[in-house]
Amino acid sequence: MHLDHLVTSKQLTRTDIETVLDRAAEIDADPSSVADRYTDTVLGLLFFEPSTRTKMSFDTAMKRLGGDIVDMGSVESSSVKKGETLADTVRVIEGYADALVLRHPQQGSAQMASEFVDVPLVNAGDGAGHHPTQTLLDLYTIRENASLEDLTIGVMGDLKYGRTVHSLAHALTNFDADQHFISPESLQLPREVVYDLHQEQEGAQIREHDSLEEILPELDVLYVTRIQRERFPDENEYQKVAGEYQIGPDHLEAASDDLTIMHPLPRVDEIAPSIDETDHAAYFEQAHNGVPVRMALLDLLLSGDGGDDDE
Amino acid sequence: MHLDHLVTSKQLTRTDIETVLDRAAEIDADPSSVADRYTDTVLGLLFFEPSTRTKMSFDTAMKRLGGDIVDMGSVESSSVKKGETLADTVRVIEGYADALVLRHPQQGSAQMASEFVDVPLVNAGDGAGHHPTQTLLDLYTIRENASLEDLTIGVMGDLKYGRTVHSLAHALTNFDADQHFISPESLQLPREVVYDLHQEQEGAQIREHDSLEEILPELDVLYVTRIQRERFPDENEYQKVAGEYQIGPDHLEAASDDLTIMHPLPRVDEIAPSIDETDHAAYFEQAHNGVPVRMALLDLLLSGDGGDDDE
Amino acid sequence: MHLDHLVTSKQLTRTDIETVLDRAAEIDADPSSVADRYTDTVLGLLFFEPSTRTKMSFDTAMKRLGGDIVDMGSVESSSVKKGETLADTVRVIEGYADALVLRHPQQGSAQMASEFVDVPLVNAGDGAGHHPTQTLLDLYTIRENASLEDLTIGVMGDLKYGRTVHSLAHALTNFDADQHFISPESLQLPREVVYDLHQEQEGAQIREHDSLEEILPELDVLYVTRIQRERFPDENEYQKVAGEYQIGPDHLEAASDDLTIMHPLPRVDEIAPSIDETDHAAYFEQAHNGVPVRMALLDLLLSGDGGDDDE
Repeated sequence: MHLDHLVTSKQLTRTDIETVLDRAAEIDADPSSVADRYTDTVLGLLFFEPSTRTKMSFDTAMKRLGGDIVDMGSVESSSVKKGETLADTVRVIEGYADALVLRHPQQGSAQMASEFVDVPLVNAGDGAGHHPTQTLLDLYTIRENASLEDLTIGVMGDLKYGRTVHSLAHALTNFDADQHFISPESLQLPREVVYDLHQEQEGAQIREHDSLEEILPELDVLYVTRIQRERFPDENEYQKVAGEYQIGPDHLEAASDDLTIMHPLPRVDEIAPSIDETDHAAYFEQAHNGVPVRMALLDLLLSGDGGDDDE
Repeated sequence: MHLDHLVTSKQLTRTDIETVLDRAAEIDADPSSVADRYTDTVLGLLFFEPSTRTKMSFDTAMKRLGGDIVDMGSVESSSVKKGETLADTVRVIEGYADALVLRHPQQGSAQMASEFVDVPLVNAGDGAGHHPTQTLLDLYTIRENASLEDLTIGVMGDLKYGRTVHSLAHALTNFDADQHFISPESLQLPREVVYDLHQEQEGAQIREHDSLEEILPELDVLYVTRIQRERFPDENEYQKVAGEYQIGPDHLEAASDDLTIMHPLPRVDEIAPSIDETDHAAYFEQAHNGVPVRMALLDLLLSGDGGDDDE
Repeated sequence: MHLDHLVTSKQLTRTDIETVLDRAAEIDADPSSVADRYTDTVLGLLFFEPSTRTKMSFDTAMKRLGGDIVDMGSVESSSVKKGETLADTVRVIEGYADALVLRHPQQGSAQMASEFVDVPLVNAGDGAGHHPTQTLLDLYTIRENASLEDLTIGVMGDLKYGRTVHSLAHALTNFDADQHFISPESLQLPREVVYDLHQEQEGAQIREHDSLEEILPELDVLYVTRIQRERFPDENEYQKVAGEYQIGPDHLEAASDDLTIMHPLPRVDEIAPSIDETDHAAYFEQAHNGVPVRMALLDLLLSGDGGDDDE
């Protein structure tokens, strides 16, 4: 794998993805093998909007590799408030760090920033744009709990606004997965995403449903996402829709014994707590997988010849 | 000592307490003996309300043991704002860390959280509930400056709302200390705390006073707490009461030469700055003792078989 | 060099300055020589007002020396809100850390704080007072790009309120630099600063200008600072003044090929982005130099006998 920066999962070929997942599996199996690998390495965290989970996960990943982090802190306390451009900010901070992780509310910001720095930069979410490490940890979780070969996956909830869902769907076309999208009509996948998926997939199914029942028994994986209250002008309408796209113990009777349930978290009511203790529940494991997957990615970026890095 | 989690100092027997204090004394005497002991360990800090001192002290303790921390950051930037339950938050973060420290405004939250995680969890304050490591460092400071045997202690100030004071008082019944409580009537110990203390102590005195003068000469330790302005509807009333429960150089004439003065800090006017340079003052040392005591506790929790930890 | 604390660059003799810069150059040339030097050292960061850049730079410096940091966090979450004095805060936190870095809005605070602690304390800015590590990194950048001997420097922009500029100007009198100050009349150097500079310098020129053109060809270094909008009651007046004290590609024709352009950053419009790629631009390097210079300073403070440090 030759990567200078990771801006979008679309950069990644199937082979690239498998390289990251294989490395993550090695690290997961024997974390001590890399625990002192990057003792002199400092990772710069630039989070221009809050994200506890992603930030803690990168932070932990770097520390589990023996390295350390420097954190820009919140935008309120930063030079951004004084009118500094993102290009200037990243060029200053690359002088402190051996690699950068950037989250920024503006779509395209990670691509732009990556053009100004010589150290590896990882996009940790750029608004409505991309969040490739989320996709990688989702793929890793699917591979560990089911298989990326001959996969039948259902994705349920808010499919219209879900960056996570779009990225995962695109990535899964590399593996010819059968993909089923379950949502209320108002939260369906955007038409252009459906069109792209049909273009990208070869021989696999891309289908949309308005109810889980008809497709649940066929699924290897059910990926649930949160339906956000603020998408609905009317509270009653929200309650009605949200209630239909929740999963509880009753549903499991119709599901395969091997069904894996995933969720990018945080959840609110989409998955009943009683499911947590069943073998179906993979969402906490999914969150935990952020660490080995990000360790693997950082390892591959830091150990490779990181492009025209002049340090 | 066998402990999976530390939720309240009431869990601790006298032997448990002495185990922690002995370990702290060993570490204090030779910090380098443990400086590289936990190089691959990551401690998760979950502070749902601000607490500079306690947080920095745990942070330092883990780093002085060779380890590192990951910090959830403030609640404003966390998934809690999206409606995530505490049970979900701790289950996600235990995937990043080898142990957790939790501060949360809700009483009982630490106990509840500890039931959801397999890694050791330390309660760093749960609202009006418990804050056991504060009690341990108080006991350590008493032992280092006076003695836990045959102790006569005075506790002065706001005894009604002071979680710190209640926990320390309960813990001292293990050592049959004579305890004197000095406060204005409106800030006396709650009746049920007094009742419990009388039940728990064996042969030692539990007495209440409205003035320091009558009891000061007998004290080995005077533990002063802050009287909070916001407890009083009337500013004049506050000034009058607060003024009576301050300690200045004049008081020291009536005190034992060996009197140890403690305070959980921050102080406002309760102790005159001129006392800082006297041998009586133990409050900065007390704050500093948070580090070896928390190092000792983390060491005991991390080195033990931490319950049903499945990692 | 014998230093317990660094409060102001006025403490530093020419020899002291050269000691720091020489050490920084050694570290810059071979960072690995010190990468494990302070593995058991913890640096306390006390930032009572925000400063991303300075804070990250100290944080990185300590980590590049193998050590770690504990951060007090923002004032909003600290004991300061409960009325604690700065003297108490620093005395508590020195119990956690082996050295302290303090930024505080009040002039004189660093000097005061240093009198209460036994561990080395570095002033990272005290309001309108001092910020000596900024001066040291400026001097280092000048030495690396031009020379401190026979230097002709121009300083342009807001010279009235610029703490950075005043400190650098004083420090440069140690090296008998010719100093040219270019600003609108309303933002000239304070008269007492000019008076002091004349007193301190020996044989070198101290001159003021209202336009860059007349002096640009003679300069080895042009140090540009930001003119802050909020200094001007009238937006038009600001636009007019700010526009005259910007530097763009046109100016470079009149400048020496060897001209070094510096800026403490963040910049807004003072330097055109097209200059970034030229050999003149030293401002990102200047920001990066904060790390080796602060590493050098911390190394000198921590390795020396830090005064009456009782640890």
